[in-house]
Amino acid sequence: MFTAAVLTLSDKGSRGEREDLSGKMLAEMLASIGGRIETYVVLPDDRKLIEDKLIYYADQYGVDVIATTGGTGVGPRDVTPDATRAVIDKEIPGMAEAMRLAGLQKTPFAIISRAMVGCRGKTLIINLPGSPKGVRENLEAILKAIPHAVEKLKGDPTDCAAPETLARAPEVVADGGDQRSSP
Amino acid sequence: MFTAAVLTLSDKGSRGEREDLSGKMLAEMLASIGGRIETYVVLPDDRKLIEDKLIYYADQYGVDVIATTGGTGVGPRDVTPDATRAVIDKEIPGMAEAMRLAGLQKTPFAIISRAMVGCRGKTLIINLPGSPKGVRENLEAILKAIPHAVEKLKGDPTDCAAPETLARAPEVVADGGDQRSSP
Amino acid sequence: MFTAAVLTLSDKGSRGEREDLSGKMLAEMLASIGGRIETYVVLPDDRKLIEDKLIYYADQYGVDVIATTGGTGVGPRDVTPDATRAVIDKEIPGMAEAMRLAGLQKTPFAIISRAMVGCRGKTLIINLPGSPKGVRENLEAILKAIPHAVEKLKGDPTDCAAPETLARAPEVVADGGDQRSSP
Repeated sequence: MFTAAVLTLSDKGSRGEREDLSGKMLAEMLASIGGRIETYVVLPDDRKLIEDKLIYYADQYGVDVIATTGGTGVGPRDVTPDATRAVIDKEIPGMAEAMRLAGLQKTPFAIISRAMVGCRGKTLIINLPGSPKGVRENLEAILKAIPHAVEKLKGDPTDCAAPETLARAPEVVADGGDQRSSP
Repeated sequence: MFTAAVLTLSDKGSRGEREDLSGKMLAEMLASIGGRIETYVVLPDDRKLIEDKLIYYADQYGVDVIATTGGTGVGPRDVTPDATRAVIDKEIPGMAEAMRLAGLQKTPFAIISRAMVGCRGKTLIINLPGSPKGVRENLEAILKAIPHAVEKLKGDPTDCAAPETLARAPEVVADGGDQRSSP
Repeated sequence: MFTAAVLTLSDKGSRGEREDLSGKMLAEMLASIGGRIETYVVLPDDRKLIEDKLIYYADQYGVDVIATTGGTGVGPRDVTPDATRAVIDKEIPGMAEAMRLAGLQKTPFAIISRAMVGCRGKTLIINLPGSPKGVRENLEAILKAIPHAVEKLKGDPTDCAAPETLARAPEVVADGGDQRSSP
């Protein structure tokens, strides 16, 4: 179970000129893995506005996941990845790579998506393309990893480095962080 | 149809000590997808010089695509990706990933290519390796996406987010960019 | 033949609360491709400390390869990729991509690894996950490319751009770096 915000970036959508099927699909897919959609908003492709919303949802609202749809291309009004990059602490490049790799199975044009994934504090921020088809194909590629990432972001104490076997002792001696050999 | 500049980065080539087969192959492949080669130059591996040329071709010359060959490795004189990163507005990581993925099918050494793809204004900048074989294998992996990317960069008004169906209305209500809930 | 430093990042390991099987596996795998382990240290997940060690091993100690294990996730104490990014001159994204791609064959969670690969001067720095299994699966994916990358970093004079054939002369005339057409 995790909380989520859905943010649709679309000039037309924000003027009420288009139904936001992508945002709806995004919300449904997140719900399917235990996401509770706390808030949903449609914004124009305005970088400053997007940055402000991402910061607000992460810092004030404190949702576990912010998922965006739209504005991931290379057009003059596509600024979602740039806004995302500006507000994240850490990039998680493998999640974006996995989405592009999945997209590439469907269309050679998938490689121009600049969708970014990263975290701000304990909030995971995921960019998805603007079409419902793009949302579905891309999100499916990373869906299983989202709850896991959310847990890790929160500082899940599970020990990732649990040894496979303790039978073999290491022969190399650790210096325990001693800085003697350093300047 | 798009305009292109070919930029070969090679200390030896710039001194006339080597024929530039890579630049020639690059020009031929771009022509095969509708590229009109406006200019072609061989430069030494000098980062400042490369940055100046990229800026000139993008801002003054205004070509749609600048394709470079050479200087993408990890050697001391390999500076093309660094010069490219310094002048682009937006990185397009998926195009570089697709090239490395294609290269990896051929040789485990492909993964040390630092080739970068991005755009400066409306100009797409693509780095390719220095060998004719590398140019061919890498460029083939992204060739179909280039004209598409060029159109999008120019602000192609085609609606990427055209809904697959309008039959299902979204149940979530958009707030149309209203900032009431924000600070 | 190349020289290497192994750096294990683990709060528990640095307090002697866990045997460092990952560092041992890393050392063994590097030895298998000609690496001579010059030094080995276990440090807590402290970003400043990690940066200092990386700089020391690269600049003062001058090893060819620094391989780290641990701290590559998205948890609050996972700072190895951030420390690495802060000290490298050049990122080598394809090596990290190849590792994540290999990891993805095993588990959907591999995509949240933020492991980074890059170089500082002539030293190759490689981040690996914290578990022995993660080290093995990830390092195997790039193992063959490591000695090659080390040679290139040192400025290996081998000509990467050796033409496949010299039979075809280029028809495009190079301007040899002449700046006449530039501002």
